[in-house]
Amino acid sequence: MTTITAKTNIMIPLSLTKGERVLGVVVPLTGTREPKASLQLLFDLVNDDMGAVNRIIIDKARSDVDLIPELARHLIDSGGKRLRPMLTIAASRMCGYEGEEHVRLAASVEFMHTATLLHDDVVDESDMRRGKKSARILWGNEASVLVGDFLLGQAFKMMVQVGSLEALRILSDAAAVIAEGEVMQLVASKDTETTEDEYLAVISAKTAALFSAAAEVGAVLGERPKAEQAALRSFGRNLGIAFQLVDDVLDYSGDQAQLGKSVGDDFREGKITLPVVLSYRRGDDTNRKFWRRTLQEGDIRDGDLEEAIRLVQEHGAIRDTVERARHYGSIAQDALAIFPETNYKAALLDAVAFSIERLH
Amino acid sequence: MTTITAKTNIMIPLSLTKGERVLGVVVPLTGTREPKASLQLLFDLVNDDMGAVNRIIIDKARSDVDLIPELARHLIDSGGKRLRPMLTIAASRMCGYEGEEHVRLAASVEFMHTATLLHDDVVDESDMRRGKKSARILWGNEASVLVGDFLLGQAFKMMVQVGSLEALRILSDAAAVIAEGEVMQLVASKDTETTEDEYLAVISAKTAALFSAAAEVGAVLGERPKAEQAALRSFGRNLGIAFQLVDDVLDYSGDQAQLGKSVGDDFREGKITLPVVLSYRRGDDTNRKFWRRTLQEGDIRDGDLEEAIRLVQEHGAIRDTVERARHYGSIAQDALAIFPETNYKAALLDAVAFSIERLH
Repeated sequence: MTTITAKTNIMIPLSLTKGERVLGVVVPLTGTREPKASLQLLFDLVNDDMGAVNRIIIDKARSDVDLIPELARHLIDSGGKRLRPMLTIAASRMCGYEGEEHVRLAASVEFMHTATLLHDDVVDESDMRRGKKSARILWGNEASVLVGDFLLGQAFKMMVQVGSLEALRILSDAAAVIAEGEVMQLVASKDTETTEDEYLAVISAKTAALFSAAAEVGAVLGERPKAEQAALRSFGRNLGIAFQLVDDVLDYSGDQAQLGKSVGDDFREGKITLPVVLSYRRGDDTNRKFWRRTLQEGDIRDGDLEEAIRLVQEHGAIRDTVERARHYGSIAQDALAIFPETNYKAALLDAVAFSIERLH
Repeated sequence: MTTITAKTNIMIPLSLTKGERVLGVVVPLTGTREPKASLQLLFDLVNDDMGAVNRIIIDKARSDVDLIPELARHLIDSGGKRLRPMLTIAASRMCGYEGEEHVRLAASVEFMHTATLLHDDVVDESDMRRGKKSARILWGNEASVLVGDFLLGQAFKMMVQVGSLEALRILSDAAAVIAEGEVMQLVASKDTETTEDEYLAVISAKTAALFSAAAEVGAVLGERPKAEQAALRSFGRNLGIAFQLVDDVLDYSGDQAQLGKSVGDDFREGKITLPVVLSYRRGDDTNRKFWRRTLQEGDIRDGDLEEAIRLVQEHGAIRDTVERARHYGSIAQDALAIFPETNYKAALLDAVAFSIERLH
């Protein structure tokens, strides 16, 4: 195991095996290291705090109306990675924050995300979410809309309890931007002529805004200067874009079923994602007709998913979407350059590498 | 025209004809007067401030995504009375608040209400809203869900701009309670055995919580003592319950089509409201079978609405729902007793009388 000597003279293992305990303190690292495509360091560093986040999540999803905790439980147990709240925890700690309010903000971020998923599934008429039946299939569209509203309300209540108007500003801005992005996607959806720029505007709003806010509030809690707040905002935003682009690629990758995301979901729902945008532009008339028939007109036949996967490969659309993801990933990593080398920074850099390399 | 002498020796007309201008200042009134069942004094007092509220509403519903202002415009023009934001304006002024932030809070309150209406229509599968086609019929369920989310996001952004953590606490609590009430109603809906208490719990959450918050924040802006804040909270809550009960009655009143609400909407949507709760309990087996068939099983035939209207009359369910509304209306009016007699207080007392007497 590689180890590095921390300035405190305590030997800190850089690569930890699962279960090893790392205290939630910022440990300065000497020199730089190559980011690893792994969430292990992040998991280990935020483990205790995430335990507290999970307790708050369960507590705040409680209600005398049984349907609410039932449905919330389904989502909580459905095994998301909780990347967004982990960003809030790690960014706060990296910024030297020593209080406990980051736990509440992290739980708010996860509730905002969960509320979005619930409403998304209704809008997209999704039957599956993370390899399980979606809430709207199990409990109906009505419950999904209303429990989403409830979780959003709880998220705002928690943020208000934290008492930072600046954090409230950042997160409520994000809430409005996310919703605007969703409407944008609804309008653009099924339009195969969407440009790459238009698509980027959609995912900047609907995905990257929450990553950005989740990271930025860490600097607010740590009472860091504006430059560091801006750095974390940029880090989150670019990581969010990279993350979404890789998600887009995974949907056209035959061998990724084990990640919990079913291959072909986006295709079946007629979603225009970057692989499609690129493939449509690079294809010939027959190819374009195929994309219009399947995604625009929703006429999907046997073998069409296989043909779609073949086309995005043939046109280099998968390769170049990954290329784009790497581009945004680099911006995210560079954004953190102004922070000193600490274990938390290393974990955040690793998270970027992981978000991209999870493809393989 | 009745006039009373204000302490400032300026003659203030108590009853104003439309168009007469009343400055937005608290005018102390000598002695008490009987509340009038009219919104005219309230309209006149808040007229200028509501102009500012409407400008903010239009401004904050703006977006590069055309669908958002289009849909918002539809709602803005659909002629709601804007009772909730008027409560915020009048309560703030009654509490001596002289700033301008009450306009932003009032607009937030209206956005929260509008977002709820959009989501409600999706959940209830309503085709009409205030006598016009509902947004979900014109733009689809997806747009209604997402634009609702957008308006809620904008509401929180505005509240954060106001910068009062206490007002934020009150309004975010209300948001969570409203959503919880909606879920409660979803679970209870179509259950003809719902008790009066259960029904009251639903409308306390889904309707009264926003009335309550809308009034209470006035005391917060005016920096009034806790007792006055509690008084306005109680005023709003009880007014909200009375208002909802009268709405319930209107849905079974044949001659109220001119109010913009179609008679029989609740019946057709299978909604259990207090007239039904009372009629079901007081009816015989044949009556109960009728309610179960129509509301629980959704099997509605020609002539059923007329039969339902006959039953709620026959069982005194309409008369007693109105009686209940008067009870809550009285509590609302008494809650304001601790405030000095001013034109704003008179307007709020009138609003309670109007909410009940609009039946006739």
